[in-house]
Amino acid sequence: MNGAESLLTTLVNNGVEICFTNPGTSEMHFVAALDEVDGMRCVLCLFEGVLSGAADGYARMSGKPAATLLHLGPGLGNAVANLHNARRAQVPLINIVGDHASYHLKLDAPLTADIEGIAGPVSHWYRSSEDAARIADDALEAVQATAGGRTATLVLPADVSWSDNPHGARDKTEPPVPSQVPAAAIAEAADLLSGAQNPAILVGGAFVDRGLSELLSRIANTCGARLFVDTFPARVERGAGSAVMERLPYLAEMAIDALKDIDALLTVGCAAPVSFFAYPGVPGEIAPEAAAHRQLGMPGDDLATAVAALADAMDAHATDASLYELERAALPEGELDAMTAAAVISHYLPERSIVVDEGATSSFGCFPLTATAPAHDWLNLTGGSIGWGLPAAVGAALACPERKVICLEGDGSAMYTIQSLWTMARENLDVCVVLFNNRKYSILELEFARTGARGGVPGPKAASMLDISAPAMDFAAMAQGMGVQASIAEDLDAFAAQFAAATAERGPRLIDCRVPTLLS
Amino acid sequence: MNGAESLLTTLVNNGVEICFTNPGTSEMHFVAALDEVDGMRCVLCLFEGVLSGAADGYARMSGKPAATLLHLGPGLGNAVANLHNARRAQVPLINIVGDHASYHLKLDAPLTADIEGIAGPVSHWYRSSEDAARIADDALEAVQATAGGRTATLVLPADVSWSDNPHGARDKTEPPVPSQVPAAAIAEAADLLSGAQNPAILVGGAFVDRGLSELLSRIANTCGARLFVDTFPARVERGAGSAVMERLPYLAEMAIDALKDIDALLTVGCAAPVSFFAYPGVPGEIAPEAAAHRQLGMPGDDLATAVAALADAMDAHATDASLYELERAALPEGELDAMTAAAVISHYLPERSIVVDEGATSSFGCFPLTATAPAHDWLNLTGGSIGWGLPAAVGAALACPERKVICLEGDGSAMYTIQSLWTMARENLDVCVVLFNNRKYSILELEFARTGARGGVPGPKAASMLDISAPAMDFAAMAQGMGVQASIAEDLDAFAAQFAAATAERGPRLIDCRVPTLLS
Repeated sequence: MNGAESLLTTLVNNGVEICFTNPGTSEMHFVAALDEVDGMRCVLCLFEGVLSGAADGYARMSGKPAATLLHLGPGLGNAVANLHNARRAQVPLINIVGDHASYHLKLDAPLTADIEGIAGPVSHWYRSSEDAARIADDALEAVQATAGGRTATLVLPADVSWSDNPHGARDKTEPPVPSQVPAAAIAEAADLLSGAQNPAILVGGAFVDRGLSELLSRIANTCGARLFVDTFPARVERGAGSAVMERLPYLAEMAIDALKDIDALLTVGCAAPVSFFAYPGVPGEIAPEAAAHRQLGMPGDDLATAVAALADAMDAHATDASLYELERAALPEGELDAMTAAAVISHYLPERSIVVDEGATSSFGCFPLTATAPAHDWLNLTGGSIGWGLPAAVGAALACPERKVICLEGDGSAMYTIQSLWTMARENLDVCVVLFNNRKYSILELEFARTGARGGVPGPKAASMLDISAPAMDFAAMAQGMGVQASIAEDLDAFAAQFAAATAERGPRLIDCRVPTLLS
Repeated sequence: MNGAESLLTTLVNNGVEICFTNPGTSEMHFVAALDEVDGMRCVLCLFEGVLSGAADGYARMSGKPAATLLHLGPGLGNAVANLHNARRAQVPLINIVGDHASYHLKLDAPLTADIEGIAGPVSHWYRSSEDAARIADDALEAVQATAGGRTATLVLPADVSWSDNPHGARDKTEPPVPSQVPAAAIAEAADLLSGAQNPAILVGGAFVDRGLSELLSRIANTCGARLFVDTFPARVERGAGSAVMERLPYLAEMAIDALKDIDALLTVGCAAPVSFFAYPGVPGEIAPEAAAHRQLGMPGDDLATAVAALADAMDAHATDASLYELERAALPEGELDAMTAAAVISHYLPERSIVVDEGATSSFGCFPLTATAPAHDWLNLTGGSIGWGLPAAVGAALACPERKVICLEGDGSAMYTIQSLWTMARENLDVCVVLFNNRKYSILELEFARTGARGGVPGPKAASMLDISAPAMDFAAMAQGMGVQASIAEDLDAFAAQFAAATAERGPRLIDCRVPTLLS
């Protein structure tokens, strides 16, 4: 077999079953190998930011690495923003970056670029494969390097791809065992919580699953701690039957206020919380300086075992957890806005749905309103780089084809990776995009005021940089242009009817939801 | 004034008059400063790949650097692909990348990334400004660093932006003088051409202007050299009245054949030609190994003076140049395809129009057919990273508001930066996009065959990776969704009527031109 076939076979043998692709000439032997090797599903996307965001969404819901296939340095460059988000989400991910044949690089042909330089900031592991005879080993090492939620970037020169590999492929190799939290750290965490007057637990990181948060609720109830969930964990299992958790507010001022009375903070799976941005005169660290802090679990650690051990140490297993009971939000009346739309979404939210949240100011209301909705998963934008939501919805839907994906999306955010809609149609994914079309970078109006620039009031030129109303965008037209069924909702009845219909049917659909900005 | 105002004032004082922006929270003081400082036009784009491509197009047509305003590492990441193309185009360009306040970086907030790492592969000059008191000096140095067609990346931490700069701004400073080609190199070039039996001159690089190519034609006619223009110079002045030049073919096999009989090659403003990609068994270097080669002019050199000196040395000023006479292509008859569409475009091409060519297989026919059209400029994709055409058209139209821009665009290429259409509408730019909608990555079908993968014939899975017909894309709907007037042309009469109308009117317009793939 040639290098490409050896690579593909090794990936498939080691549990990599899906590849998001946007190939070019240097990847043609990889593409050809798809017909020679069974077991790799290939999903074509029209832009590389879709690939990397989709791989992230897929990994969050499957726990498994997806591969991306990228075209030299510039193709990797286009993937960087969502690779940044994926890195912050601690997902396993493998980039396959095609490159010129090794002997061609010295000629500095037009597409030659410093791939290693571009890969560095978004890769935990990097290698440019030097020899077809080594490609299977490189591929296996790349898969293993993704353990614990890391990104591996493997460069595949065209001649490595097309040359023969006499060693064939590598068989399945067990992945590395997750690292264990040291017993001393568990004892320190128990001491911290037991010795405090007003302790708090903040859980975050890659995956706040139902079992983890229920155990943390028992622990919190045992020691009288407040239980918070971080603002933007990668994935949270929540809704009816899940543990009651306060969400740490996004706004630093509000988050500081929420934690102001604590004297001890245990963070589980995440670092101590910090302000998303710096603002003149606002502290960057959210917890009070005087509060003692310990972190339980570094990225890649076995959190479930650690939290169970903490529950043992605190004798918390017999304490009741505080759980949400099922209570669907009532159907609202009145005008269509971000809050009434949130109530509609909460009212109709299908059981086991996956909510991908990149709605910014327009979806702030959806999170609290869905706390008592049927059980569901909630995926957050982890790295702050917008243009993640639509691609992540693609990946989540491919990981869980039997579950409905609800993508809460802002108009500004959507436009970074709007090409995702085409892949939704091509793969007939069960995604309903609620496109909050408020015709502003509304969050930037808020942020402008918070930074205190120009006394918090934008002048006319600044205001025009936050305003995307001219020309007004018709997302239904764009979606239809990419083969996605779409409708416009200009009032609450229309939105409720369209969302209800979307949840009752399968397949991709976009609702262009015309809401006023939350801040106006 | 604060750091942002000092930066903006210094840029304006030194000839940077336009900034393509996609700001976030860390850039709010820069945005606020736009209302305090006169002279900077700000153009909002919905995705950073549009910004960098627009800055490239602007610089090609104006000769002046544009600034981009980018949001931290991920925003810069989104700009990388078109910065790669801009680097290959040798255009001056300044990236302003907002960053967290310097004291906030240690907290590793979600958007924190290795900006320097991402910038490195696409920047000739890089600095993260450390102090508001130094920002004007940094800005001036950045502008100076763009001389000769280079990219400068200046990181603006939020606290540098909002802090007071007691020194104010820097006044206008003369840019560096272009470097001169050494007299010895000119003498060697003259010797090379004079001493050869079958010499050729190949001109390329940043800007093949009319004066340059006319002089080269005189030189070629003096010594019996063939005169070629490189496949993808950044900008070529051409059409009626310009010098006759053979275009070096894109396909390596054809390019090798075109040069096979030469015994000497003088390249002017560009390196010796190489194959775009490597193919098994095909040489990477285009010129015969036995042909002597010299290069006249490194990036940033004063080419006009060097070529005039060469003409002196060869006593070529009195020799006639070979010039194209005006001859408009006849209006074609028959089916709508890439060749008949090219004839229509050539027939109606407005004088002084700017053609931005990212049509790949579908626009191959346009270049030869427009050789005798009225004088116009032709901009090429220099770095091979598709998704450049629509943004470059934005920038070219802003640089030359009195000239018609014709953007020849492939369907696959268009989808990387389709958001450009919104900025065309917002700024009411005089751009006609001819969208060749053949529903394939047609060039990859060709490349698949050339690489010899799987005997040159894609299997079903490979074929599906090259096929973007399902779902079929309606670019007219997408354009209208972004506020651009659009129409669909399904036959030749419709296309001719629509293109004629587009050239007779002003303002943005897209023609969704339904052509069969050239290769089917």
